[in-house]
Parts: sequence; structure tokens; C-alpha cells
Amino acid sequence: MAGFPAPIEALIERLVRLPGIGRRSAARIAFHLARRAPDEVHALAQAIGALPEALTTCAVCGNLAPAGGTARCPVCDDPRRDRAVVCVVEQADNLAAIERTGAFRGVYHVLGGAISPLRGIGPEHLRIDALLARLRGGEIREVILATNPTVEGEATALYVARLTAGSGVRVTRPATGLPVGGELDYVDQATLCRAFEGRRDVPNS
Amino acid sequence: MAGFPAPIEALIERLVRLPGIGRRSAARIAFHLARRAPDEVHALAQAIGALPEALTTCAVCGNLAPAGGTARCPVCDDPRRDRAVVCVVEQADNLAAIERTGAFRGVYHVLGGAISPLRGIGPEHLRIDALLARLRGGEIREVILATNPTVEGEATALYVARLTAGSGVRVTRPATGLPVGGELDYVDQATLCRAFEGRRDVPNS
Repeated sequence: MAGFPAPIEALIERLVRLPGIGRRSAARIAFHLARRAPDEVHALAQAIGALPEALTTCAVCGNLAPAGGTARCPVCDDPRRDRAVVCVVEQADNLAAIERTGAFRGVYHVLGGAISPLRGIGPEHLRIDALLARLRGGEIREVILATNPTVEGEATALYVARLTAGSGVRVTRPATGLPVGGELDYVDQATLCRAFEGRRDVPNS
Repeated sequence: MAGFPAPIEALIERLVRLPGIGRRSAARIAFHLARRAPDEVHALAQAIGALPEALTTCAVCGNLAPAGGTARCPVCDDPRRDRAVVCVVEQADNLAAIERTGAFRGVYHVLGGAISPLRGIGPEHLRIDALLARLRGGEIREVILATNPTVEGEATALYVARLTAGSGVRVTRPATGLPVGGELDYVDQATLCRAFEGRRDVPNS
């Protein structure tokens, strides 16, 4: 296209593949970078380019881990974490979201996705065998199935729960219900139904 | 933060400096890249890193131009463009937006911003002298002041218009009014006022 130099066009083509970036945002970012100091642009390129070699998968839980060290993620490497409670998540991002709360002191297991027949993802594509192997180690008391509250996430949680039958391990799933600080009017029907189903007694005596 | 490997954190810090990217989107992009094939990640890094050396500023109009060539942008290099009509814009992105319409066949002049006393940008920081030098060349018949319809953009247009007084060059500004396909209810008051002020006769006889 006239007026769009080739290097800008090439960058836009790459940027639109990122999640949440449309053509308009991609163009905005490309033109922004075209105006920035070379040092700043090179630093961003370097931070991106270094990623594949800087990261590996934690040998224990499947979380992202810094490459070249113990091959364990910061959580598995932390001696203060409770290894008896394992929180199962779909992706490393979900783990990061839970870590941000600072409330969970156990360890994790990253499945690498959720079972999705439509997208051709079966249990054999997920790190489910590795989870069962960890459970056989005997150290684990509770498994929290924190897959996403979506159809795929629920199905995956159910599937994993069945496999743990008879293991004597407690299996839980985080509560579904009203978001803290949200307004009832804005909560979707499915969530509202779940919140009513999961209602809890308020001690009043 | 535990669970966030350093390379991811470093990348997030860089990504949040981009326009329209908050911490949440930055984290989403970083984790997405951590899951992609190294080739794809390196290609993105390369497209970004190549930008400063691949681009230069057009010696004629100030638009982005491929480095190492004629030092002219694709528009100024195109013999079919009408050099008698110059469209003045704030940034190269604005030029790209106009090019996308395919309706303008003249050439451009990129000011590099708008006059903004609050941000310490005076006329001397913009490519206004270069524009006046082009006007003195005598080839230009019309200058379209397509700076943004903001306070700064309007002030800049007014300033440039005054400097061209007595030059014999026609100076215009694109119309302000209702967006095509928009609904009257959703148009802001200032735009609606301008649209009424700028109303045009409908031939009915």
C-alpha cells in the first residue's frame, strides 16, 4: 500500500498474530515504534527474542521455568511451599493469576490446556499422566482442580477427578459464584444460578 | 513475584510502554509468546529490531521512508501523485489513514506533531519551516490542513494558515461533521454542533 513502508507492513503482519491485537492496534504500535529511539526499540526486540532460550518447562509441574538452572520453576524451587496441596491449572498464565493473589501456599500442576474434542485436544495431549505419577508419589493430600469455569475446563476437571477415584486424595474445585465487588444486575445467568446452588449458611444464632 | 520467571517479567515491563497495552494485555502477550515456536518468536523480535535501521524520514515530506534508497517515501516517489496539492498531517500514522481511503491523489507534509504549550511543543519543534520552504517553490496550489480535530490540531491548523497569508495558495481544512453510518444519538455534542454549522444545501428544484 502506498505510504506504508515495507518494514512497517512486515511488523504489522507479525503483531496481528498476538492475542488481543487487531490490525488497528498493530498499526498504532508499529508507528509508535517507528518514532521511538533505536535503543528502546532494540530493547523490546531483545526481550522478545530472548524468550525461547530463556525459558524452559518445569520438570515437576510444567510451569515456565528459567532455562539453564535446576529446571524447576520458582514455585517448585521454594522450600516453603506445601507440597501436599497441588493446584491443577490449564496454562502457566492461570498459575500466575493465582500467584498474584498470594493466598495459595501449595504447589501447581500445569496441564498445558483443556480437553476439547472440537479443537482436537484429547487427554493424551495434556500432562495428565505426569499428574497421576505425582499422585502415586504418596505425598499429595489434596488436588484443587482450578481449570477454567468453561465447558472445556469443567470437562477436564471431571475427567481428572474420575482418574483419581480410589486414590484417597481429596479432590476439590474452586467455588463458582458472584464476583466480589460486582453487582447482581451485571452477573450472567449461569453464574447467578451457580451462586444460588452453592449458597452457604450464615450463622445467626 | 513467585511464579513469574524473570524473562517474562522483563518482557512485560517493555510491552506496557506500547500504546494501548496495559499490564494485563502485556502478560497475556508474554505468556502467549512463551508458548509459541522459537522461530515465530524470533521473527517478531527481528521485525521489531530491524525497524530503526530500516526506516528513515522522507527528505521531502517527513513521512516514513525505507532507509538506504532515494530517502523519499513511496508517496513522494510516485510520479502519478499531484504535487500541486499538499495535505498537512501531524504524524505518519495520519497519512497512512488517509492513504487507506485511496481517495487522495496529492502529496503530504508531516509536521511531526501539533502545537501544544502544555506539552512544551512550540511551532519551532514542528516541520513548519520546511512546509513554508515547499510553498515558496511555487508549484503548490492548495494546502489541506488535515491536523486532528482536537484543540491542539485546530490551533496548529490556524497557525499554519496564518503563515500562508498572502501566498496566493488556497488553504482548506477537511469538513467536521457526522460520521458516515453513525447514529445521531451517539454523536457527541461538539460534533453535532459543527455538523449543523457546516450544513449544506440539498438541491430540490
